Amino acid sequence: MSADNEITPQSQDFSAWYNDVVQHAELADHSPVRGCMVIRPYAYRIWELMRDALDEQFKHTGHENAYFPLFMPQESLDREAEHVEGFSPETAMVTEAGGSELEEPLAVRPTSEAVIWPIVADWIQSYRDLPVKLNQWANVVRWEMRTRPFLRTTEFLWQEGHTAHATAEEAEEEARTMLGVYRDFMEDWMAMPVVTGLKTDAERFAGAERTYACEAMMKDDKALQAGTSHFLGQNFAKAFDVRFQSEEGEHEYVHNTSWGVSTRLIGGLIMSHGDDQGLVLPPKLAPHQVVIVPIWSDAEEKDLVMTVAQRVNRVLSRSVRVHVDDREHVSPGAKFYEWERKGVPLRIEVGPKEVSSQELVTVRRYAPEGRERKRTYGEGKAIAMVPQVLEEIQDDLLQAAEERREERSVRGMEDYDEFRQHIGEKRGFVYSGWCGDGECEEKAREESKGTIRVIPDPEFRSEDAPSTCLVCGDEATEEVLWAQAY
Amino acid sequence: MSADNEITPQSQDFSAWYNDVVQHAELADHSPVRGCMVIRPYAYRIWELMRDALDEQFKHTGHENAYFPLFMPQESLDREAEHVEGFSPETAMVTEAGGSELEEPLAVRPTSEAVIWPIVADWIQSYRDLPVKLNQWANVVRWEMRTRPFLRTTEFLWQEGHTAHATAEEAEEEARTMLGVYRDFMEDWMAMPVVTGLKTDAERFAGAERTYACEAMMKDDKALQAGTSHFLGQNFAKAFDVRFQSEEGEHEYVHNTSWGVSTRLIGGLIMSHGDDQGLVLPPKLAPHQVVIVPIWSDAEEKDLVMTVAQRVNRVLSRSVRVHVDDREHVSPGAKFYEWERKGVPLRIEVGPKEVSSQELVTVRRYAPEGRERKRTYGEGKAIAMVPQVLEEIQDDLLQAAEERREERSVRGMEDYDEFRQHIGEKRGFVYSGWCGDGECEEKAREESKGTIRVIPDPEFRSEDAPSTCLVCGDEATEEVLWAQAY
Repeated sequence: MSADNEITPQSQDFSAWYNDVVQHAELADHSPVRGCMVIRPYAYRIWELMRDALDEQFKHTGHENAYFPLFMPQESLDREAEHVEGFSPETAMVTEAGGSELEEPLAVRPTSEAVIWPIVADWIQSYRDLPVKLNQWANVVRWEMRTRPFLRTTEFLWQEGHTAHATAEEAEEEARTMLGVYRDFMEDWMAMPVVTGLKTDAERFAGAERTYACEAMMKDDKALQAGTSHFLGQNFAKAFDVRFQSEEGEHEYVHNTSWGVSTRLIGGLIMSHGDDQGLVLPPKLAPHQVVIVPIWSDAEEKDLVMTVAQRVNRVLSRSVRVHVDDREHVSPGAKFYEWERKGVPLRIEVGPKEVSSQELVTVRRYAPEGRERKRTYGEGKAIAMVPQVLEEIQDDLLQAAEERREERSVRGMEDYDEFRQHIGEKRGFVYSGWCGDGECEEKAREESKGTIRVIPDPEFRSEDAPSTCLVCGDEATEEVLWAQAY
Repeated sequence: MSADNEITPQSQDFSAWYNDVVQHAELADHSPVRGCMVIRPYAYRIWELMRDALDEQFKHTGHENAYFPLFMPQESLDREAEHVEGFSPETAMVTEAGGSELEEPLAVRPTSEAVIWPIVADWIQSYRDLPVKLNQWANVVRWEMRTRPFLRTTEFLWQEGHTAHATAEEAEEEARTMLGVYRDFMEDWMAMPVVTGLKTDAERFAGAERTYACEAMMKDDKALQAGTSHFLGQNFAKAFDVRFQSEEGEHEYVHNTSWGVSTRLIGGLIMSHGDDQGLVLPPKLAPHQVVIVPIWSDAEEKDLVMTVAQRVNRVLSRSVRVHVDDREHVSPGAKFYEWERKGVPLRIEVGPKEVSSQELVTVRRYAPEGRERKRTYGEGKAIAMVPQVLEEIQDDLLQAAEERREERSVRGMEDYDEFRQHIGEKRGFVYSGWCGDGECEEKAREESKGTIRVIPDPEFRSEDAPSTCLVCGDEATEEVLWAQAY
């Protein structure tokens, strides 16, 4: 491994570690436009695997994909701002096109509620046209001041679900259902456990009545908001006059939801599992689940070794994503480092020794205590075991992340000064009581490094939640989860 | 069918027919921003099927997907214009963002050569880093004056392949390979036969040394340029300083290609097969390959009929995309019309009569002479035959389009006045000799409604091509294909 590829240890500087992994695992690159990144092929393949898994669930839950314009007239933004208090996206504006100034500037979508609902309003006549359940895979632009690859970029890729329903109950159920789809995806595919719950008024999306979120703990003990699902009530329906005739013949406003996850998930993946050697990928999202590294010292050995490597490749590629790294001019050691840096779950080594003993060396990228990282098996057995080993790695990663999160979570904290110190120095998740007053929330936000991430869903709540507010000491109405957040 | 859904006959006004199909098959909708369209779910599903088929071929031919920024600095456009003669995209410019004016305006990508190569230049050091074979699925923006849904829109979706090679020969081979991938896709998936060939200097992409294209004949006998593949030579490599160290240690410019197809293909699909009843979809690209329409008149009948419909659905959905239209409040007749309008290849009807006779009625959307459109089979046989019937429909559509094109092609035309009249009134494809002089091409372009679409590849050339130029009568150096074009 050349010095060029050295990765700063996590313990030394987590932020530098992150940037090094993004660069040396060839995930992203800078562009000449501030805050806009290039998603390199290796990371884009991860995104494709994420997209396909999510898209299948969206379709399975009755959603259809569509595509709405990148641009919206200034007037749509204005109508939105008029009806939706606090709505002020950091919007990029097109003012010239085809060599001349536009009569009305166009906004580049920061999110598409104000693009979609004025148009879809015309598709909805009666209750029979409901629900409308749309999703869009698209790029959006938000003029952010401080950007980080994947975590916060001026342009990013995402999916945005947008639905309309006849009743508030149905819309609420939709918002909760999609939160569940996100949670399942994050746990089952990303091996990234999340706490789900409701955002406080201060943290919810401006256009929403209720915002639900998935919060994951990164390896630096900070929280990442990984996905949100909004019950929008009739805010956008009123802004854009989206009405339907009910069964009783009344003209009523629809009830909306929207929900999204973005390329930010790749940042979450990096910071959930990565280590000082680089990226660690859960098998379900690994572009190459297995890399075969053939080892030879001369042409004769190469022939022998490549015959075995290709045979193993042929059989394995029926069930897993496998890649044979047969590059010349790169040493086996350099290949090992490179694929470790890129987080490939399982490496198979084939050298002259393995050819003669009809064995294969298998090396896991991640092995918890109690599992051997490196094992040698007979060729047939090694091949047969691969799918099971990949499943084990997937499960091991989720379990390790869950254990880590629980170790780094403190429940029942009641002392405000202790909280300020803990959240500032040790970080992690802190569960406490809260009186429900926005002033207490704001006070803690100003005086500590933490914010309320969510009012957790029942299954995440403490058995013995404190009965008093962490900040003011009055009676608590909710248990809340605090953390430093990205 | 309500008057709202009436479709203008093709013979009466082809352009109105097209717009009616786009609207009544629910393919696209207008947006408040001029020239920007909404791709509705039914058409977006067609696009997804196209994308998946093409993407598999791109990966199979060694390409990787990536994602590059939507915006590029004005300076990149300027550098491009400096090196690439005649390059003047109709570009939209972002001049304000986050509430203040930008120091340097940003261009919204009209195509990404000027975004990609300045960045990828840094990924290339030596010949060992070549070839670089990238593809991107993205939206692009071109400020077009006259727009038509799918055919020409201000924003559209496309894929753009971008590759760099060590030699001109290799880049040329790449450009030809991808032209072949496009042709195979258009014929095998879209059932849309194309003539491939080289564009003349007047018609090639400004940045290219050679532009290859696929030209299809629409049902109004006009040509649609359905895909292009460019051998770019070193034009962009010189503009953006993309160099590599050769095996001999020299620093050399790379040789590039780019190639793209867009949502325009959906327009091509509509105009290749559609008829006065609406859209006709080739089975491989149909969102629903089969629609089952259950027919009942009371609740008891409904139970009986739905039991059979669901059973047929269960078996069929293992191998084909099938949809049961069990909507209440919509008559069977209205359903028939709707799915015909939407081009579903095969309809299966199940009513009380079929339940009692254990039969199914199958109705093809398209049946050429010699095939029965409507047939009744025993349930088991009907189910078993579906995949084969869909293949037949796919083949029938390609054959019909090929026959139509050949009927509407004239070879060996030598009289210029006859040509002008023919291309203006009868349209179709006209093959003629050409002296290779741009002035003759320009003269014909001005005096007739036709343009040279391509210098056809050998397999499309006439056995007895005229030896003289159609326009000036001098010796012909090429045979060329003329048509009115979209």
